[in-house]
Amino acid sequence: MRWARFEQNGTPSYAVVEDDTLIPVRGSPFESWERTGAKLKLDEVKLLVPMIPPTFYAAGMNYPEHVREVAAKIGQKPNLPTQPDIGYRANNALIAQGETIVIPADATEQVQYEGELVVVIGRECKNLTRENALSAVLGYTIGNDVSERTWQKSDRTMWRAKNTDTFKPMGPWIETDVRLEDLVTRIRLNGEQHIEFSTNHMIFGVVDYLVAMTSCLTLYPGDMMWMGTEGATANMKHGDHIEVEISGIGTLSNPVVRAG
Amino acid sequence: MRWARFEQNGTPSYAVVEDDTLIPVRGSPFESWERTGAKLKLDEVKLLVPMIPPTFYAAGMNYPEHVREVAAKIGQKPNLPTQPDIGYRANNALIAQGETIVIPADATEQVQYEGELVVVIGRECKNLTRENALSAVLGYTIGNDVSERTWQKSDRTMWRAKNTDTFKPMGPWIETDVRLEDLVTRIRLNGEQHIEFSTNHMIFGVVDYLVAMTSCLTLYPGDMMWMGTEGATANMKHGDHIEVEISGIGTLSNPVVRAG
Repeated sequence: MRWARFEQNGTPSYAVVEDDTLIPVRGSPFESWERTGAKLKLDEVKLLVPMIPPTFYAAGMNYPEHVREVAAKIGQKPNLPTQPDIGYRANNALIAQGETIVIPADATEQVQYEGELVVVIGRECKNLTRENALSAVLGYTIGNDVSERTWQKSDRTMWRAKNTDTFKPMGPWIETDVRLEDLVTRIRLNGEQHIEFSTNHMIFGVVDYLVAMTSCLTLYPGDMMWMGTEGATANMKHGDHIEVEISGIGTLSNPVVRAG
Repeated sequence: MRWARFEQNGTPSYAVVEDDTLIPVRGSPFESWERTGAKLKLDEVKLLVPMIPPTFYAAGMNYPEHVREVAAKIGQKPNLPTQPDIGYRANNALIAQGETIVIPADATEQVQYEGELVVVIGRECKNLTRENALSAVLGYTIGNDVSERTWQKSDRTMWRAKNTDTFKPMGPWIETDVRLEDLVTRIRLNGEQHIEFSTNHMIFGVVDYLVAMTSCLTLYPGDMMWMGTEGATANMKHGDHIEVEISGIGTLSNPVVRAG
């Protein structure tokens, strides 16, 4: 099942996606819901980000090749995580399917994509076990963890390197029927494939993170967790078009401009 | 003017605080509002955290003595910030005036208070200037940035060191009439004063942060920024009572227990 969010008469509404059709619902996937009688053509609707999370979690470094690549780029030794310590990103930076990534005028050329699996929490939960952890997941969507590498190196935090407005494209929708081990992520810049990797080949997996996190904290419906990316990443420039596809979920597609 | 939030018939409502009286309003301080006819006694009402922010910002290290003290505690060199790089905390950890800080069973004895000024954003804003930055502030409240120092030292992020459930007491209300330069913070553990400092003697001030942050990101109504703490901090243990007072705002008061 696919859940999208779109704007209807100025109000965000949830809808079920079936093939090329959007079926608006009353309610949301996080509570009770029922189909309305309406049907809309998917390609005539402007999608919103699938949800605005109460807390925006991100694993950061979570694939071995990527840890080595980024360490080389920012001039540090590779430092593979030894436990699933979750980090944070910020809601201001979220944009939806098709919206524009805006590189600020004072950014360097080192503005790069990171294609990531996004885990969407469906219910309030604490103290999850390895056995029941995935039952707290509503579904999965796709994120692009856009990063300015010189700021990532120079700053004490990642506030502007990763959370500048428009640096967190997410969507197009939440897919609930997913077998993690089958997923493949492909990243295309201007139609040319740059990276392909098995999405689930993480250093710490979805279950590892959920169990560790909920030993100390409560997760809430709509909370989300970005799971990191693999491999080297490349610069994006004005006029580029970046796509992150995860098999079985969909393709997140965004144009890139540089502010004048 | 003082804004509090409380639960009325199962729904969070805003209210104006006048002396010992709570005057519920329709609406919120972030939109339009009007007083209802009701009046409640403040001491008969359970206050909620004054707001749940879209994004929870925190300056972290922002007072010179505290930077030196924490560096000594976690065995690192003191590293004074050279620019206002904002960080993040998480909404799951927020608790209100009077609610209980719960130290997890597996935490060490190094669970410590940090009394902080909290800046509450009143309107959507970007590209603030030094001249207009404070016009985006609705008011100020008080936060206690509870921290487990061994996790702060051992972990790759501060997810459990600072964002374990109940580790972010905040309140009791938002005060809109504040002269930053007049504020004094006092921290009392079991009634004994441990620290007193001029709240505004920060390494980077409220205006510095707002101008820097909004050069890259949009702030939204209800976003908040915790401004850091000064001096050495001490351990809190089961049965303790911790108070953070900021003159002209109020006193944030919370009991402490250790989970069995």
